[in-house]
Amino acid sequence: MKAKVEVFLKTGVLDVEGKAIEGALHGLGFGEVSGVRVGKTIEFDLAGADPAKAEADVKAMCDRLLANTVIEGYRVEVV
Amino acid sequence: MKAKVEVFLKTGVLDVEGKAIEGALHGLGFGEVSGVRVGKTIEFDLAGADPAKAEADVKAMCDRLLANTVIEGYRVEVV
Amino acid sequence: MKAKVEVFLKTGVLDVEGKAIEGALHGLGFGEVSGVRVGKTIEFDLAGADPAKAEADVKAMCDRLLANTVIEGYRVEVV
Amino acid sequence: MKAKVEVFLKTGVLDVEGKAIEGALHGLGFGEVSGVRVGKTIEFDLAGADPAKAEADVKAMCDRLLANTVIEGYRVEVV
Repeated sequence: MKAKVEVFLKTGVLDVEGKAIEGALHGLGFGEVSGVRVGKTIEFDLAGADPAKAEADVKAMCDRLLANTVIEGYRVEVV
Repeated sequence: MKAKVEVFLKTGVLDVEGKAIEGALHGLGFGEVSGVRVGKTIEFDLAGADPAKAEADVKAMCDRLLANTVIEGYRVEVV
Repeated sequence: MKAKVEVFLKTGVLDVEGKAIEGALHGLGFGEVSGVRVGKTIEFDLAGADPAKAEADVKAMCDRLLANTVIEGYRVEVV
Repeated sequence: MKAKVEVFLKTGVLDVEGKAIEGALHGLGFGEVSGVRVGKTIEFDLAGADPAKAEADVKAMCDRLLANTVIEGYRVEVV
């Protein structure tokens, strides 16, 4: 199975990298851009054949290692 | 419109952050994980109503600022 | 002049990248490592000849763009 | 002992995050800034009392996990 995790800052947490990218895009003439948010994706292979167990495991990985759940949220996809 | 860009290291470029995450997941008992790759997502709003122009603009943003195309690839989605 | 900014998570904010690196180093046999913290450095050239003004400017850059001062601290060096 | 590792892109490798920060700083009125380069610092504690061994170990950590030596260089400090 393949897992994909998206980790992003929670709404309300200032995204400094997003702000930097937005400013730079404006400077390059892309003034139509707003609300830039930067996140992280983590993709990997998962041995095993039980999708429900896999999804539960990936959520546990997020809570224990991949995300700082005080400031970050995450989305999990297992296929 | 909403744009989403995914930037990831090209196949063959060592992903040190992915390697660190994989080692740490193994240490936590998630031995079923392999091939971890870490990427970046950049999401933003786009003023304008022409999807074809928007997609071309977002590709230009990738080539000029968002990705280092020597070592990174990108995927663009405009909706 | 040259400026160097170090941005790091405040004590008490979970450092997920540091945790991943620590787990991976342990897995590679480097069990003597603890307390891993990951930060960012931003180095650049600064036109101008007044060190006091330069330092004040760099601090303003940190507060306005380079750091999320709710969760991050920074150190500034201008030489 | 305390170790500090600085990882940075080699000269000649495009630094997209540095470029974004530079563009954004110009947009905020800090036009005196040029040549922005972004790096990563990794700080940790090291059990043991032999500084020479510690430094050799930290270099091995860099080569094996902390840096992609094809595109990145590093500096090590052990105190």
